[in-house]
Amino acid sequence: MSKRKVCVVVTARASYSRIKTALIAIQNHPDLELQLVVAASALLDKYGSAVNYIEEDGLKISERVFMVIEGATLATSAKSTGIGIVELSTTFDNLKPDVVCTIGDRYETMATAIAASYMNIPLVHIQGGEVTGNIDEKVRHAISKLADIHLVSNEDAKERLIKLGEFEDKIYVTGCPSIDLAKDVLDNPEMDFDPCEKYGGVGSYIDSAKPYLVVMQHPVTTEYSNAKSQAKILVEVIHELDINTFWFWPNPDAGSDGTSNALRSYREEFPNNKLRFFKNMEGRDFLKLLLHSKCLIGNSSVGIRECSFLGVPVVNIGSRQNRRLRAHNVLDVDFDKEHIKDAVLKQLEKGRIESESIYGSGNAGKNIADVISKIELSINKVISY
Amino acid sequence: MSKRKVCVVVTARASYSRIKTALIAIQNHPDLELQLVVAASALLDKYGSAVNYIEEDGLKISERVFMVIEGATLATSAKSTGIGIVELSTTFDNLKPDVVCTIGDRYETMATAIAASYMNIPLVHIQGGEVTGNIDEKVRHAISKLADIHLVSNEDAKERLIKLGEFEDKIYVTGCPSIDLAKDVLDNPEMDFDPCEKYGGVGSYIDSAKPYLVVMQHPVTTEYSNAKSQAKILVEVIHELDINTFWFWPNPDAGSDGTSNALRSYREEFPNNKLRFFKNMEGRDFLKLLLHSKCLIGNSSVGIRECSFLGVPVVNIGSRQNRRLRAHNVLDVDFDKEHIKDAVLKQLEKGRIESESIYGSGNAGKNIADVISKIELSINKVISY
Amino acid sequence: MSKRKVCVVVTARASYSRIKTALIAIQNHPDLELQLVVAASALLDKYGSAVNYIEEDGLKISERVFMVIEGATLATSAKSTGIGIVELSTTFDNLKPDVVCTIGDRYETMATAIAASYMNIPLVHIQGGEVTGNIDEKVRHAISKLADIHLVSNEDAKERLIKLGEFEDKIYVTGCPSIDLAKDVLDNPEMDFDPCEKYGGVGSYIDSAKPYLVVMQHPVTTEYSNAKSQAKILVEVIHELDINTFWFWPNPDAGSDGTSNALRSYREEFPNNKLRFFKNMEGRDFLKLLLHSKCLIGNSSVGIRECSFLGVPVVNIGSRQNRRLRAHNVLDVDFDKEHIKDAVLKQLEKGRIESESIYGSGNAGKNIADVISKIELSINKVISY
Amino acid sequence: MSKRKVCVVVTARASYSRIKTALIAIQNHPDLELQLVVAASALLDKYGSAVNYIEEDGLKISERVFMVIEGATLATSAKSTGIGIVELSTTFDNLKPDVVCTIGDRYETMATAIAASYMNIPLVHIQGGEVTGNIDEKVRHAISKLADIHLVSNEDAKERLIKLGEFEDKIYVTGCPSIDLAKDVLDNPEMDFDPCEKYGGVGSYIDSAKPYLVVMQHPVTTEYSNAKSQAKILVEVIHELDINTFWFWPNPDAGSDGTSNALRSYREEFPNNKLRFFKNMEGRDFLKLLLHSKCLIGNSSVGIRECSFLGVPVVNIGSRQNRRLRAHNVLDVDFDKEHIKDAVLKQLEKGRIESESIYGSGNAGKNIADVISKIELSINKVISY
Repeated sequence: MSKRKVCVVVTARASYSRIKTALIAIQNHPDLELQLVVAASALLDKYGSAVNYIEEDGLKISERVFMVIEGATLATSAKSTGIGIVELSTTFDNLKPDVVCTIGDRYETMATAIAASYMNIPLVHIQGGEVTGNIDEKVRHAISKLADIHLVSNEDAKERLIKLGEFEDKIYVTGCPSIDLAKDVLDNPEMDFDPCEKYGGVGSYIDSAKPYLVVMQHPVTTEYSNAKSQAKILVEVIHELDINTFWFWPNPDAGSDGTSNALRSYREEFPNNKLRFFKNMEGRDFLKLLLHSKCLIGNSSVGIRECSFLGVPVVNIGSRQNRRLRAHNVLDVDFDKEHIKDAVLKQLEKGRIESESIYGSGNAGKNIADVISKIELSINKVISY
Repeated sequence: MSKRKVCVVVTARASYSRIKTALIAIQNHPDLELQLVVAASALLDKYGSAVNYIEEDGLKISERVFMVIEGATLATSAKSTGIGIVELSTTFDNLKPDVVCTIGDRYETMATAIAASYMNIPLVHIQGGEVTGNIDEKVRHAISKLADIHLVSNEDAKERLIKLGEFEDKIYVTGCPSIDLAKDVLDNPEMDFDPCEKYGGVGSYIDSAKPYLVVMQHPVTTEYSNAKSQAKILVEVIHELDINTFWFWPNPDAGSDGTSNALRSYREEFPNNKLRFFKNMEGRDFLKLLLHSKCLIGNSSVGIRECSFLGVPVVNIGSRQNRRLRAHNVLDVDFDKEHIKDAVLKQLEKGRIESESIYGSGNAGKNIADVISKIELSINKVISY
Repeated sequence: MSKRKVCVVVTARASYSRIKTALIAIQNHPDLELQLVVAASALLDKYGSAVNYIEEDGLKISERVFMVIEGATLATSAKSTGIGIVELSTTFDNLKPDVVCTIGDRYETMATAIAASYMNIPLVHIQGGEVTGNIDEKVRHAISKLADIHLVSNEDAKERLIKLGEFEDKIYVTGCPSIDLAKDVLDNPEMDFDPCEKYGGVGSYIDSAKPYLVVMQHPVTTEYSNAKSQAKILVEVIHELDINTFWFWPNPDAGSDGTSNALRSYREEFPNNKLRFFKNMEGRDFLKLLLHSKCLIGNSSVGIRECSFLGVPVVNIGSRQNRRLRAHNVLDVDFDKEHIKDAVLKQLEKGRIESESIYGSGNAGKNIADVISKIELSINKVISY
Repeated sequence: MSKRKVCVVVTARASYSRIKTALIAIQNHPDLELQLVVAASALLDKYGSAVNYIEEDGLKISERVFMVIEGATLATSAKSTGIGIVELSTTFDNLKPDVVCTIGDRYETMATAIAASYMNIPLVHIQGGEVTGNIDEKVRHAISKLADIHLVSNEDAKERLIKLGEFEDKIYVTGCPSIDLAKDVLDNPEMDFDPCEKYGGVGSYIDSAKPYLVVMQHPVTTEYSNAKSQAKILVEVIHELDINTFWFWPNPDAGSDGTSNALRSYREEFPNNKLRFFKNMEGRDFLKLLLHSKCLIGNSSVGIRECSFLGVPVVNIGSRQNRRLRAHNVLDVDFDKEHIKDAVLKQLEKGRIESESIYGSGNAGKNIADVISKIELSINKVISY
């Protein structure tokens, strides 16, 4: 019997860590053949070249798909998605997968979902049924409507998908593969690298043995024009807190050029501060850096998901993660300089927090490969109402 | 106060009759400015050049957007949607609408929905919340998830959208504008034109004063490879029934070349039969033709919607309209030659059927313009669960 | 030693007969591996599905590339070329050819030339150095400037390319492969099929044993708006001549919808005339039909090229072939009803004309394969001035 | 009489300084209406946001066209050109220009040329007829073949175009507008700004009153894989020369990510050196910086063109400007560390060089506007052979 061909499209560094253990499990599964497509910002130096980590992890890449139109305006986000559909439909025509998997809610993920569903290829959506609170949420639930099979992080997501009209027998709670990586780090917690030395980056040298913060702030696409001013505020907060800080550059959503500009200005204005900027970090190292940090600041979903399992205090800013399921590690604030500063100080007082398994318990990758190898594949989907 | 700019994208002949009275009402509304974009197959001679009727109806066209990649394979449907996003995002950038409207569930409708929602323009979806039973249904509900406001045909659709997680205060029951046209025809029922004389077409002359059937069969995208053989069967059914028949060509979904081929072969095989083929007909004339027909055969939604109001018997074939709300005029059959023939004979016995208002009562266009002129516009959408 | 990978992109039915014997010779050459890409109108039913003939001829197709945006306006021609570049650069990335070949001067041929030269793949241009007299000429010479190697039809073309700044050692006179097919037909001249029976078509039955004309008229892209009226005039000429006529449908340049419309109107206006319309014909059969015809009328290059070798009288209309090298079989006229009629009558008086070898002597396919197998491949091109 | 609508498409910072005075002259001309389209890298922060300077110079922008697909591989250069054609054909459809102007030989310039010529809009090419020695040359001469009118820098270019088959009456020697800017700087030579203070940049502070070098090195697209290693060599040369140096970042051709990487590594390896990196500089300031520099090093055409007029010594490296017309200010070397170093030392000894007018004498902008206002516009082009 021939192996079931599973095409997974990875479009960003963040998505890769949300799927890595599943990719490895699919590649190693006796009944599955992995067709890995690396696309969009996952290919770009500017956004951390996830493609390099993918290759280092021993995953074989079937195709590379360039689809991001430069400019980071709202129109270029839309156009990049359009180009992605044009390109991925060729890719699927060539690879002829039995099933296509897409992950999460990033704007360009829609390109995978449309190309697959319009070409009558069964579509698996990983991370459906969650809520966040912005354009991402529109995209995520729209993809759920195009998807034939849902592999979700927790019972909360499953219940939501059922309410949203999906049939229960098409939904599998596998946990989120990002927690698999967090579990591995919790099991092997020693800080075994020097961030500045290993990753270069720009700014002051920071000793990771001393207390430090981590910042990861993404532009919010529905607040596009504010991207620059918000980044500026955050830069000032960190400056006033005066604690060593590792700062990660944002992903290529609309607005990211604004953020980058603010960071660059800052770097030139305050050359001798306690900041170190990175564009990216190997996933495992990043989790270790988080695990040993005093607090994560920003609006990254990593604060809600991985940090809940790692027990790291998080100050979550603004609307981007609005309605996502939270553990006790998260303190929410709006985009106000003083509120953010106060919240960080509160979290620093509390210290480490107990690990919670609300997004999985560490075996999601294996679960996902198993489900995909066994499910009945079909494209004749209806809703339950 | 400046007028609210309402951009409506019409992508097909069928969609045009689903929106025509609303377009006129928007154009005439004192607080609204219509920005009419005619795109995709609505521009193409091969699919009936809806654009000509639009101009004859006195509507001013703001932009024409060519986006259909020739080939009618599944991949070209996907690619056309991708090109549509690339093109429409430019269009929206130029027109700067306050709100974008999209209609129904055709594959390329997704291009409008993605371009608008990714560009942070409030999106109104007309005809959401209905069910049909195939790829169209995936597309329709996915668009509902991207839409900020829903203007629906009936309470059934409203209830379904609420169950699907949309907020009640974002849903307005306006009725379907296609029923506005049907009402006008019911009010003025006389058959005032000769179809063959007015529309040319190909085949035998048919006298519309004598009993006749109408056929309108679209390829079903999830049964792509069967398009040709199914069209053939239907051709044989009509041949055996031996009643005068007006037959309309299909729309440009994947598979339509297959259907066209079968029809062409037939025309050459049986040159002296009782068939007349048309590519299209002005909406009002088409409804009159239906009103006076003995039965509509095929899988067009016109059988389910307009014919319920007109009281015309319908033999609905196959899965395309599977789960759509039906009145008493519809008899459903699978794609079997004998079953189809039997069903037509049964409907011919019954004769005309009482008018039902399950898709509106004839004032939808005005309702839609009124709602759009008054609603609060916002893009910060969440689902209700 | 691995074989040299030769990627040839065929974009139209007409281009296929200009390259067919070369494709076969490349496929059979011990040092070459053919990578055949069938693209654009060569894939479309509407334009004769060259792809079917290609497969019947035993050629293995590596990729199919859909790139034609429907609409046949000038803008869609440009857009189709743009999409072609996007698609073909993916194709070349996948196939990794050692050399790419492109043929002639059709608008979409530019897509092949740009994709190859921008990707640093040596580009061979077949049929460079010829002159015609319209937009095609701009395209042809622009492609010559992008090409690294030129395989031309005759010394005239070679001399022109040298004058245009190309180096003599990059130009090979191979003859045109279309003449290879004409030679085969001259060697086996018997009319061994019935056109109407074998190819169907639309219109009256015509007996090919009796005297007949052939019409093949393409829209001229720089006279776009006239396409429809010109087709009408030609229809009238044929009607007044009152001789049996085989008429072939035009190719998908901008304006072709106009031509098709005029032909369709005519077919409906004069149902019982002496006309038979075909969309296409297998190349060999078409050449036999020409060989036995009394005269070819229109603006097809087949009149200038193949007919010079076949010795068939030609009435060449308008500017499309303006400056192309002619043999004694061609009579040129402008687009005037009376002038065209007079010219046809003159040609009918003359009868058959002696064969001339100005476009090759029948072994071009083999020559082309041999040159491609031996030339040094390089992309570092300069001009000679 | 309505004004002649002149659409100029500017795609890069470098192209802007090649056309700036012409744009101003067109905007101010009583018989012309400027339709300025800013596209491709001219819109991108990463490549110096020429768009900002354009607005500061008081030019009104009609449309912005994003078309660069991120990735900087050869395939993305091709794809960007394809997208450019798709987008610009919409732009031209909207603006309906009487004539389109394109400048130079950059890869994406082809998009303008194809969109205009395929849409039957007369095309003016500025800077045709020059030679350089790489892919740019293929593009430049291919565009000449698509162009209807040529506005060239000097008699040398005119003679070459005539040899290449263009008609003399379609060629106008206007001079190059970049020399207009150089003339203005020669007329007002005082160094009236501090580069580091005004432009920020990254690296050490450099006092422009002391002797300094300028580096401007572009990746060579036909030597793609070497981009990184070549940038490294150049970095070492400058390090060993140990003279203050202003270094400018490259433009977004294929290979530019490689160059950027090398520069970044260096900046981190040698933090306290005599280097200052800039992404861009307002044209006039850049010319002043050149005027007062001891030597320009690299492969930029500015060394060949503007510096010939300014009398600045230049060390021109590698093949990029291979065959361009030179004045006495240029010393050519291959890409060898020692050869480059020696050449710089030789130029430093010589000092300033006499101004030469081989690319114009300072009134090109006005000449261009005058020619465009008076020429007969036509698209029916043939070559002269």
